[in-house]
Amino acid sequence: MIEDKNQEQTKISDLGEFGLIDHLTKSFNIKQKSTIKGVGDDAAVLDFKDKKIVLTTDLLIEGVHFDLSYVPLKHLGYKAVMVNLSDVYAMNASATQITVSIALSNRFPLEAIEELYAGIELAARNYDVDIVGGDTTSSNKGLIISISAIGEVMREDVVYRSGAKANDLLVVTGDLGGAYMGLKVLEREKEVFKVDPNNQPELDPYTYIIERQLKPEARKDIVKLLKNLDVKPTSMIDISDGLSSEIIHLCKQSKVGCDLYEDKIPLDPQVISTCEEFKIDSTMIALSGGEDYELLMTVTQDDYPKIKGNPNLTVIGHMTTEDAGMHLVTRDNAKIALKAQGWNSLSDPE
Amino acid sequence: MIEDKNQEQTKISDLGEFGLIDHLTKSFNIKQKSTIKGVGDDAAVLDFKDKKIVLTTDLLIEGVHFDLSYVPLKHLGYKAVMVNLSDVYAMNASATQITVSIALSNRFPLEAIEELYAGIELAARNYDVDIVGGDTTSSNKGLIISISAIGEVMREDVVYRSGAKANDLLVVTGDLGGAYMGLKVLEREKEVFKVDPNNQPELDPYTYIIERQLKPEARKDIVKLLKNLDVKPTSMIDISDGLSSEIIHLCKQSKVGCDLYEDKIPLDPQVISTCEEFKIDSTMIALSGGEDYELLMTVTQDDYPKIKGNPNLTVIGHMTTEDAGMHLVTRDNAKIALKAQGWNSLSDPE
Repeated sequence: MIEDKNQEQTKISDLGEFGLIDHLTKSFNIKQKSTIKGVGDDAAVLDFKDKKIVLTTDLLIEGVHFDLSYVPLKHLGYKAVMVNLSDVYAMNASATQITVSIALSNRFPLEAIEELYAGIELAARNYDVDIVGGDTTSSNKGLIISISAIGEVMREDVVYRSGAKANDLLVVTGDLGGAYMGLKVLEREKEVFKVDPNNQPELDPYTYIIERQLKPEARKDIVKLLKNLDVKPTSMIDISDGLSSEIIHLCKQSKVGCDLYEDKIPLDPQVISTCEEFKIDSTMIALSGGEDYELLMTVTQDDYPKIKGNPNLTVIGHMTTEDAGMHLVTRDNAKIALKAQGWNSLSDPE
Repeated sequence: MIEDKNQEQTKISDLGEFGLIDHLTKSFNIKQKSTIKGVGDDAAVLDFKDKKIVLTTDLLIEGVHFDLSYVPLKHLGYKAVMVNLSDVYAMNASATQITVSIALSNRFPLEAIEELYAGIELAARNYDVDIVGGDTTSSNKGLIISISAIGEVMREDVVYRSGAKANDLLVVTGDLGGAYMGLKVLEREKEVFKVDPNNQPELDPYTYIIERQLKPEARKDIVKLLKNLDVKPTSMIDISDGLSSEIIHLCKQSKVGCDLYEDKIPLDPQVISTCEEFKIDSTMIALSGGEDYELLMTVTQDDYPKIKGNPNLTVIGHMTTEDAGMHLVTRDNAKIALKAQGWNSLSDPE
């Protein structure tokens, strides 16, 4: 993951702003029928006919949301798109377009930005979204990425955070905690590299969790799966900050409580073994780790037969009345209050 | 314009990320019929029925696009919205929603961010757009603002950059060069203030141009005016980088040339007098100054009677065939090639 510093380098200032934009956007293809006009004018023009649109946006800052010393630029570009598509899927919508704004300092040669865009374009291609606009500018502060995503959905299919009812089942996709433990491993390797740059890291036992951190995949497939199963969740949210924090969002916005069962939380064996190695409690990591980009939803009890046994969907608890509160039911059957211990970027020291 | 440093200060970390977002968004009102769901879920939900939508985005970085030593935060918030609305109007569309993402370092107290949001909200209120989403995060690099704007338009009303034909008239709104000369005055006062902090700046002769720099207004009125006049421009762009650069965009994308008449370029008397004071050529400032956020358009000769004499619209030239090239016709009737000397952020030194 250490970049080759000897590759050929082109100064971005040689191209100029318009030259850079032309260079980066010339390979963008339009595939969505709803895209009437992509890049190249004051704004993109889109047509969704009778569908509703969903709109979401995210801002990623070097040194706060990513560290280029262990995140390859191509992966960073890919992940920046995933973060936004995940929000679109959490509305039960299909993602259709993104805009990409990048600010970068002169320390980045053209080839670095091409790497970043290669990741963005790969994500757009894999997820069938058009890149329809954006902004490229200079920065005196490293790399900043701002992506907005648009999706389309029939009005009756929109799923908000606020529709959960008491007795609904709490369901999560995939498994949790991997992205955070992947980050822990990468941070450790960075420290080792500082001490001995010739040390080749032994990352084989961590491939799954490192991929969860560096190349997460948004759950486009789940929106399709739910449609095929004829299940409309009563509420849904994506897991960016950690399971605990997201459950609290659903409960507060739906005005319900919940019982989450510790022994039901899906964990990959690599997460469990790495947690043991780092002497961290794996439940705590699943609850607070963040960046998993799985979907958390509630479904009615009536829909249980439809989701039962599906390898993508795990029932981890059920909703209760608001006054019953939000609880984790531990393996030894103790009930403890759920707390949002998710990654809270604003309380980090500067 | 110097902020009172003694005002009460609240640390943002006391609120936390979610607390801050709640605090900032609680006063947001929804006014647009197309806004079904604003802030508070994974994404906003919008419904434009049979209208097309336009989408644009911009990224503003402290130290590159603004300098907080002479831009009050409230004005900065207002201007950040204008920059995006201007792009929507340049498509001949109505602006309907914005998303606002802010990254800020701990050096900003809550009161500073409230000032910034006050400007953003004032802009949204004045221009009838809903704030429907965004992201608030920490920054280790000062203040970063990313705004996306959405607008709606009937398909037959969309105006691109690419529709100009030879013999079309080149028309500009308002007057040019003010924003740049306002910046020059503010930069000079900053230097004076550094030498003598007790010196009270004498800004009366510069009120118009300083307002053009600090509180530009996007030309929402022009979209309405054109509709009332029953004029659909053949091409349109907003003037963010300077007249010269924008004319070249229209010509290149429309595959036409143009003759721009120096003596027709609209200049405010304050721009002329300040240019004289700074010993700068006012034509050069209009051509290359940037940040005027006026609209530049082409209209057919047939529409000339409809726009003739309108105080908002000035005919400054006409389009020619592509092989005739792009020219400035000077006051002494010399023809010189137009060059894009607009503000090119990527060639600035870091």
